[in-house]
Amino acid sequence: MGQRSFLRYGMVGGSLSSFMGNVHRTAIGFERDVILTAGCFSSRDAVNLETGEALGLDPARVYLDFSEMARVESERDDGIDFVVIVTPNNVHYEAAKAFLEHGINVVCEKPLCIELDQALALEKLADESGVLFAVTYAYTGYAMAKLARQMIKEGKIGEVINVNAEYLQEWLLSQVGDSGESLGTLSTWRTDPNKAGNSNCVGDIGTHIESIVSYMTGLEIKRVSARVDRFGHTLDLNANILVEYSNGCPGLYTCSQVSAGYGNALAVRIFGSKGAIEWKQESPDELRVTLLGQPVQTYYRGTDSIYGRAAQVSRIPSGHPEGYYVAFANTYKIYTNAVRKKLNGEPLMAEDLDFPTIRDGVAGVKFITATMESGRKDSAWVEL
Amino acid sequence: MGQRSFLRYGMVGGSLSSFMGNVHRTAIGFERDVILTAGCFSSRDAVNLETGEALGLDPARVYLDFSEMARVESERDDGIDFVVIVTPNNVHYEAAKAFLEHGINVVCEKPLCIELDQALALEKLADESGVLFAVTYAYTGYAMAKLARQMIKEGKIGEVINVNAEYLQEWLLSQVGDSGESLGTLSTWRTDPNKAGNSNCVGDIGTHIESIVSYMTGLEIKRVSARVDRFGHTLDLNANILVEYSNGCPGLYTCSQVSAGYGNALAVRIFGSKGAIEWKQESPDELRVTLLGQPVQTYYRGTDSIYGRAAQVSRIPSGHPEGYYVAFANTYKIYTNAVRKKLNGEPLMAEDLDFPTIRDGVAGVKFITATMESGRKDSAWVEL
Amino acid sequence: MGQRSFLRYGMVGGSLSSFMGNVHRTAIGFERDVILTAGCFSSRDAVNLETGEALGLDPARVYLDFSEMARVESERDDGIDFVVIVTPNNVHYEAAKAFLEHGINVVCEKPLCIELDQALALEKLADESGVLFAVTYAYTGYAMAKLARQMIKEGKIGEVINVNAEYLQEWLLSQVGDSGESLGTLSTWRTDPNKAGNSNCVGDIGTHIESIVSYMTGLEIKRVSARVDRFGHTLDLNANILVEYSNGCPGLYTCSQVSAGYGNALAVRIFGSKGAIEWKQESPDELRVTLLGQPVQTYYRGTDSIYGRAAQVSRIPSGHPEGYYVAFANTYKIYTNAVRKKLNGEPLMAEDLDFPTIRDGVAGVKFITATMESGRKDSAWVEL
Amino acid sequence: MGQRSFLRYGMVGGSLSSFMGNVHRTAIGFERDVILTAGCFSSRDAVNLETGEALGLDPARVYLDFSEMARVESERDDGIDFVVIVTPNNVHYEAAKAFLEHGINVVCEKPLCIELDQALALEKLADESGVLFAVTYAYTGYAMAKLARQMIKEGKIGEVINVNAEYLQEWLLSQVGDSGESLGTLSTWRTDPNKAGNSNCVGDIGTHIESIVSYMTGLEIKRVSARVDRFGHTLDLNANILVEYSNGCPGLYTCSQVSAGYGNALAVRIFGSKGAIEWKQESPDELRVTLLGQPVQTYYRGTDSIYGRAAQVSRIPSGHPEGYYVAFANTYKIYTNAVRKKLNGEPLMAEDLDFPTIRDGVAGVKFITATMESGRKDSAWVEL
Repeated sequence: MGQRSFLRYGMVGGSLSSFMGNVHRTAIGFERDVILTAGCFSSRDAVNLETGEALGLDPARVYLDFSEMARVESERDDGIDFVVIVTPNNVHYEAAKAFLEHGINVVCEKPLCIELDQALALEKLADESGVLFAVTYAYTGYAMAKLARQMIKEGKIGEVINVNAEYLQEWLLSQVGDSGESLGTLSTWRTDPNKAGNSNCVGDIGTHIESIVSYMTGLEIKRVSARVDRFGHTLDLNANILVEYSNGCPGLYTCSQVSAGYGNALAVRIFGSKGAIEWKQESPDELRVTLLGQPVQTYYRGTDSIYGRAAQVSRIPSGHPEGYYVAFANTYKIYTNAVRKKLNGEPLMAEDLDFPTIRDGVAGVKFITATMESGRKDSAWVEL
Repeated sequence: MGQRSFLRYGMVGGSLSSFMGNVHRTAIGFERDVILTAGCFSSRDAVNLETGEALGLDPARVYLDFSEMARVESERDDGIDFVVIVTPNNVHYEAAKAFLEHGINVVCEKPLCIELDQALALEKLADESGVLFAVTYAYTGYAMAKLARQMIKEGKIGEVINVNAEYLQEWLLSQVGDSGESLGTLSTWRTDPNKAGNSNCVGDIGTHIESIVSYMTGLEIKRVSARVDRFGHTLDLNANILVEYSNGCPGLYTCSQVSAGYGNALAVRIFGSKGAIEWKQESPDELRVTLLGQPVQTYYRGTDSIYGRAAQVSRIPSGHPEGYYVAFANTYKIYTNAVRKKLNGEPLMAEDLDFPTIRDGVAGVKFITATMESGRKDSAWVEL
Repeated sequence: MGQRSFLRYGMVGGSLSSFMGNVHRTAIGFERDVILTAGCFSSRDAVNLETGEALGLDPARVYLDFSEMARVESERDDGIDFVVIVTPNNVHYEAAKAFLEHGINVVCEKPLCIELDQALALEKLADESGVLFAVTYAYTGYAMAKLARQMIKEGKIGEVINVNAEYLQEWLLSQVGDSGESLGTLSTWRTDPNKAGNSNCVGDIGTHIESIVSYMTGLEIKRVSARVDRFGHTLDLNANILVEYSNGCPGLYTCSQVSAGYGNALAVRIFGSKGAIEWKQESPDELRVTLLGQPVQTYYRGTDSIYGRAAQVSRIPSGHPEGYYVAFANTYKIYTNAVRKKLNGEPLMAEDLDFPTIRDGVAGVKFITATMESGRKDSAWVEL
Repeated sequence: MGQRSFLRYGMVGGSLSSFMGNVHRTAIGFERDVILTAGCFSSRDAVNLETGEALGLDPARVYLDFSEMARVESERDDGIDFVVIVTPNNVHYEAAKAFLEHGINVVCEKPLCIELDQALALEKLADESGVLFAVTYAYTGYAMAKLARQMIKEGKIGEVINVNAEYLQEWLLSQVGDSGESLGTLSTWRTDPNKAGNSNCVGDIGTHIESIVSYMTGLEIKRVSARVDRFGHTLDLNANILVEYSNGCPGLYTCSQVSAGYGNALAVRIFGSKGAIEWKQESPDELRVTLLGQPVQTYYRGTDSIYGRAAQVSRIPSGHPEGYYVAFANTYKIYTNAVRKKLNGEPLMAEDLDFPTIRDGVAGVKFITATMESGRKDSAWVEL
């Protein structure tokens, strides 16, 4: 019997009108041999069926219930090789659990889930079942984020002595204004505590900061001291967070959805004893590297000066922006390659797992939980 | 009989190892209902067949000859709705001609072809056959290039009084150096006169400048005065071009493949009597607009200040870079929408044809031809 | 008797080798009729006398003791109109006190002094004596900092809801490194607790953040929660500071002298309910203004879109950088104009006092004191 | 007899309301021992006398006639050591000639003069008299322009193979507009052919391009092919210029006064066989250096990576912008140092003459003359 290259995947959530659903499908589409085969796209049956049809699925594989989907697919010879979970946050746990229990590999949108005990339960299940579990902190998929990680690991900037990172958006500012208008009417589940969990801003974007810093530096957060602001809304819209890592090094994170002039401005600055590395999601093909006493260096994706993982995942010539879809596509390229290896019984090396795993998902939930608690306790330090 | 939404396409050129072939397929993949159905991917039969198989094509629709493909597909009930030509330049003419003669819609990579009489012949054929013919000057697909076009058309910057545009690359500089090493050994058809045509730099990237300026401003070039440099190579590596438009307005284009520090730095500045508009392909989601006496304005794709076509084609929230693939995908979105309308007998409006057509292809060949002639004549003005 | 336009000034500290002494003298030199007339340039007599001679002073007005200088100059008919104090921090208090007690107008380098009770004593003296007292937080002298202040006061960005500001340097990083080398040997008084006071980084540059934010917004700090790092050195090298203003609005300040890649990177972002304003000392002639729903606006000093104070102090055409010296020169222009008005018995309006006064000096000392205390108390909130 | 350190200078032109007069005086003021001693500030006697008085000059040394000034000052024991000529262009020749004939060192604003034969006559006079003659192409005074020159001389970027430089302004655009309004009414001598000479845009700013490129590269222009536009005005407002240097290398210059969004945007890109160097006057403290195959390097003035002349002239710590005045001040620092050496009989080395000399002034006039001629001849190549 030959090697598997062709892969089948299913999706939970991600109906036609779902932004993230389309992003995931498009990103997977960069791989020519990974095909959407099954789905449970919505809790509204009509929407679910309509999506399945529009996406050309066999009606038998459009499920009204994700547990049923997990069971049936796990029993088929031609069942899905992995599932992608892109539902609102509050469904992540149950959905992931269902597929884990049937031994199906999982890709889950961030945050992993809402409650920490759920996260730990999923981690335990994943460990026991041996599935490949990815959490799509997709910014880690950018080539230059990988170069940053590699350079830091190589000691280019010495020991990390300070971290400064932020993620700023403006999209909820129009709801603050002078009018005192409530934010409660926003037509997105992200600002609905029943669906988003106990956090909006920290849970949606603050968690990306934690993820990308952890990815680049390997640092683990020991404790946080957070100032969290709601500006009259039910959930948080802004958070300024003092961070202390396990090695005693300080960090500073800030996330905001009420910062005029910012779209998705994730910016990371890692300061070391011999230099510094900076990267911005909004101009992702550049990496600013400063080594003490030398001119500031700017690395551009696709040029001859790039090496290692960054060079491996780079797709198009320098100066042609790869962008957001490619970050996702890179994550899927690495993830699906790992799934293939697993299916083919090949050993998985560390570099095969160069995507955020369930351990990163758990770390994210810990970070969100501790930050929100510190906010409630007038910025007291809270251990993770 | 219902409306057609599903489309089939074929490809000429674009084997697995072809960079542009993959770009076109990936970009078309952003549309979920446009499917690759036939192909003649390489003049090397083994490569052709291997590509067809890897792409999951019915072997019956992998053709050893593009003329055969044009004939057979045009006779099938389920024949392709359009063909994508991504061969080396010297094949464009024959391939496009074959499909035009069988009434099949064509997407052709730029430049349209090598000789001007060929270009005019294709234009005549296209006009007679009524096919939809696109030439993939794909940078015109960027949302903010469309906003620039719209603002200029609306008179935001008054009358255009000057244009300054450039396209700089560095990838051939390593072949110049001090060593006097010949460029003739480059393993790309782009620097091979037999395949690329009489120009390398002007024909490959200079033509993009002509295209994007024409797209944004509607200006037509009357004559050019060019300094063309080869630096010891067979074909051109650098060109500085004085331009005069039909309205008497001056322009300045420069293209180079030997400019250290530049990847694909297409940058356009349109100066008007009341303001100016600037756009750079390397940061395509921004548009710099200056109106006299006002602060400089920067428009960002995906924000509330964007309108018209730019807003229509914008896919993801601001700050998430859309990038190169999306520029192609936008062009294909508009083109395939036009093909659908045509198939469904709907009238095609001007905005349905918001992609570079064969007329733009012909203009490109004229520009290349005149520029190279001026270069040979010590920068004498040459009319287009 | 006619109006005074010609002014005389004296200097305490600022010998030939003093960087700040030269900066102050050069900046005052932008005014053609304000002349250095007296001085006590160093506690080392030889250096003092040498400086006086090199600067062309009458030897009778080069004093070995600043108290003597204050007394004698205050008794002369042609005595100095104001004194500039540019000594190490630990001398500020005694020097300022001496001149205040003799009713001589004072310009004092920041920070005003080391101990809060000293600061309050100076404030009391200044109020009683009616002298004009400036503290050279000179970044407030930049034209575009003034435009920011004016726009915020006009309500352009609505209510301030968040502030994010930083001041990063790299110059002490070379002392950290992997070697564990002590910073105690640095040959500058700034890192010597006996001369610099109880803070190095916060006292030298953190205080500039407090000053410029206060200048632009008028916000008063209620309390701070600071993480302060010494990295093995006697004094602080890095501080991350959560801020709460009197109106309850959050802020975030960070200052560092160990951030590779940064020279004097003071950057201020003021977020409001209707927009945001951003300014960077390293590109001081630009101001980034975002108004909700509109394109981002960049104002450039010297252009037609500038108005008010910013336009008044702007000296040279746009695009010619004014720079650091001009920021000082602007402060002196406004200060000396106020001194002239006072000497001529003209009433002083609010806009005549558009320079940091002793009240700003006191606020600075409060900020430094509270920040350092919070640092010692594991980031507990400390009220100012 | 001791060494001279104190210098006296005189000024021709530069009344109180003259922008350039104030710039020169302020820049010289950065040197504490170079004193304005004599002047002939205006052809209008009242203005001249008022300026002399305001600047605190001895009335005996305020001259109604610059020829008289040259004669009398040359005969005084305490006569001026050099003269600064900041009149309108049409007076440069006569004024410079007067001082040259009396052996007085000259600093002359650019362009040196209007007619080429005048320029050559001045050059001859200067050579015969042995005076130190500087032409204030002051942008060559920026530290980073000096670093560019040094790196290119050291071969860092290999052989220069292409140059691309521009100087864009917007200040005359408001005079173009749709109205067809004449520019002839502008109240500045720069647009008056009788005072500015046969060129406005090329003569005022185009010449700076020629100067800075020549300074950085040492390249000499062989011929130019220019498109010059007047947009209905008497003098030129825009010029696009193909350049060929003596070594056969191509260049491209563009200057404009009708480019919305640009203040004094002089930008220089020198492309070599091994790399490239770029510098912009509007952010003068940065230098972008690309070496083939390496990350792009940005050098910042004031950092440890700067060396040679750039380090010598750098005055303040990195990140504090030095700006326009300092560029002039650097030129004067070097020039006055050379004057002191000459007065003291010390030999002058090449690096002592690191300012634009009369040879650069002549080159400027040649460039302006040839460019305007090419413009008149429909862009025919004109040899310099």
